[in-house]
Amino acid sequence: MSRIFSSKWRDRTSAECYDPFPVHTLKRVDRPTTSISDHLVQRTDQREHGFARAGRGDFGPFLAGEIKRFVQKHPLSGSLRTMAAVLGRLVDGEGLISRDLSYRGQTTSVMNSVAATKAPGTDDPHFMARHIKETAYFLRSDAVGICDLPHYAEYSHSSSDGKPIDLPHKHAIAILVDQDWRTAKGFTGNDWISNSMSFLSYSTSGFIACILADYIRSLGYSARAHHAWNYQVVVPPILLWAGLGEMSRVGDIVINPFLGPRFKAAIVTTDLPLAVDKPIDFGLQDFCDKCKKCARECPSNAICNSGKVIHNGYEKWPIDVEKCTSMRVGNQKGSGCGTCIKVCPWNKPYTPFHRMINWTMRNVPPVRNMAIWGDDLMGYGKPDPKAKWWLDLENVNGELRVPGNSVDRYR
Amino acid sequence: MSRIFSSKWRDRTSAECYDPFPVHTLKRVDRPTTSISDHLVQRTDQREHGFARAGRGDFGPFLAGEIKRFVQKHPLSGSLRTMAAVLGRLVDGEGLISRDLSYRGQTTSVMNSVAATKAPGTDDPHFMARHIKETAYFLRSDAVGICDLPHYAEYSHSSSDGKPIDLPHKHAIAILVDQDWRTAKGFTGNDWISNSMSFLSYSTSGFIACILADYIRSLGYSARAHHAWNYQVVVPPILLWAGLGEMSRVGDIVINPFLGPRFKAAIVTTDLPLAVDKPIDFGLQDFCDKCKKCARECPSNAICNSGKVIHNGYEKWPIDVEKCTSMRVGNQKGSGCGTCIKVCPWNKPYTPFHRMINWTMRNVPPVRNMAIWGDDLMGYGKPDPKAKWWLDLENVNGELRVPGNSVDRYR
Repeated sequence: MSRIFSSKWRDRTSAECYDPFPVHTLKRVDRPTTSISDHLVQRTDQREHGFARAGRGDFGPFLAGEIKRFVQKHPLSGSLRTMAAVLGRLVDGEGLISRDLSYRGQTTSVMNSVAATKAPGTDDPHFMARHIKETAYFLRSDAVGICDLPHYAEYSHSSSDGKPIDLPHKHAIAILVDQDWRTAKGFTGNDWISNSMSFLSYSTSGFIACILADYIRSLGYSARAHHAWNYQVVVPPILLWAGLGEMSRVGDIVINPFLGPRFKAAIVTTDLPLAVDKPIDFGLQDFCDKCKKCARECPSNAICNSGKVIHNGYEKWPIDVEKCTSMRVGNQKGSGCGTCIKVCPWNKPYTPFHRMINWTMRNVPPVRNMAIWGDDLMGYGKPDPKAKWWLDLENVNGELRVPGNSVDRYR
Repeated sequence: MSRIFSSKWRDRTSAECYDPFPVHTLKRVDRPTTSISDHLVQRTDQREHGFARAGRGDFGPFLAGEIKRFVQKHPLSGSLRTMAAVLGRLVDGEGLISRDLSYRGQTTSVMNSVAATKAPGTDDPHFMARHIKETAYFLRSDAVGICDLPHYAEYSHSSSDGKPIDLPHKHAIAILVDQDWRTAKGFTGNDWISNSMSFLSYSTSGFIACILADYIRSLGYSARAHHAWNYQVVVPPILLWAGLGEMSRVGDIVINPFLGPRFKAAIVTTDLPLAVDKPIDFGLQDFCDKCKKCARECPSNAICNSGKVIHNGYEKWPIDVEKCTSMRVGNQKGSGCGTCIKVCPWNKPYTPFHRMINWTMRNVPPVRNMAIWGDDLMGYGKPDPKAKWWLDLENVNGELRVPGNSVDRYR
């Protein structure tokens, strides 16, 4: 009975069903539904990330300039990014020191370093996996999964200081935070709120990951938080192995069966003994093969209309990183771009009606064509002006102005 | 139709109904339901707060020692408290400086100071009140209200440095964050998770308040966040005037009609033009007059069984601050105490069944006696062992141990 209610308030007290979403109903498989040639994947250098390349001018001088302001040009994403930057030094108990936080000028670490002795009763991997997930849900995560940390999911070098990365951790805990359904309903996909949606989830999942990593260190195990301001890991393969989604047509984007692509993730890597989750199969490879709505609607034509390829050992739909980065960083009619998130048929609220559709899309393959057809028919993917609540504002040379394309109703 | 769904996923796009909870159905009144003699209330010195008094030995040497460890003695509340402490320097754009956050040794402020020019279209108080609330909901607040900041709600002096407080702000925005229904169902009220519940809400509401205050400053208006690690205001009168609850039998605790007493609040004070909410009347004075369950169950007998008194200009049920503080700080069989939160009949999940009971308790006075009787009969207020997810642990001289009264099922 309680399962018809939405995630937050359901009874979540049984061993198989303590997640807010009914992840126990998902089909589990031994390997991700897209092939990963574990021995062929080369670790990537964080300095080769699209944003890093834009910053050093690989995509031209315009984007090299815009990348310095593309998040801060809207005041709300600017404030969320500042908070993410503060959290960037709280990942491992080493970064931020207390001279700014103490009244006595001490310079000890603010957060816990690894406790000298392990807490009693923390050595059972199955018990601890459940405990860590329930702790992450208590901290207001929307979805959580655990996997072995594949070595290829570590960046080879950090973009901040160019140092080689070698994490001493066996496991990864992935924490997803929703980008807000109501806002996703209201925005066009590439107007002035898009970066705020990203950084809401970046900063909030980072906040949770920093607290969780600190807690694990206090239990006597090494742990590091990885979030948008301080990743040392590549997120998508971790989400695949942790059973939080499948690779999608969008390219490097993983889609979760209950949140769709409407989330960002933070990761905690640790040597705490943890039982791992298995990858999931909810039919997304078949679905994305048929749907192609993201490719049709992408304003930069970065998403492919054709089939999957093998790239660096991963089977995936290819994405044109330069076009995608150029749109997000260079967008002059908005802040960022999440049009693929907006139009994806899996971006829905978790209501009884959509839950029923969701179940059939997952479990009854012939229904998928009808769901894709119906999604357009019902107008999903179009902005709902009633749901718009934010201010269209742009910081131009230190002063906020109403951009030319503003559609604010109340002024 | 969407109103039977729980808060997060309902359609929240109409002008009168954009809050997650249906606050538009509440009865509004001109003044709080408990008398406040505005001209008689003396501003209180933060150094006279129960915890401050315990710290300086007013309640004896045992509590003066215990106050240094009563939150940190459990590892999860310890980690949450550390995060709250980090947020303590992010309240006004002046505190934390960037030498620890920059790679270039600059010492500028990390967060925004007040922008030199006001953002266009931000001078309509009604429009901005709705916008600020919708922004706070986007940032994952559970309930938000706005009031004029009463001068008596400012502390006279700060407990951190003893300096006099004089805020230049006309309005207060109150942000409530739930302490987690599932945990509230599982705990006894005074076991090892109680402080974690408090600090989950303290740190999360503080996180939201710091981002919101920074955003308001970027719009060109002065704003300061106030949260558990850095309050300059007294919270209860702000919650009353902002229409977020009524004074309860517990004493200085305000009860919200949808969250009960299961929340903590952070405040943003600002000179942004804002329309204010009106106080609410959901029958709590009559309810608390009859119920008395908190007084019956309080392990320290701090809550009175009799009628209201006038104290410092406020009409309120008296509470024995020394007994309450002694229980929370000195509890040797747990970390903190929230038994009054646990047993209150308003501490319920927001499900269709409880929403129906909630409506009748608010609107049909004769039902209240039956609801109070039924609450005991149904076993509410007792811990549900199936909902327990946390580890009973106590830090004793730097080492985590399983306390003697642990009821962990899995070890």
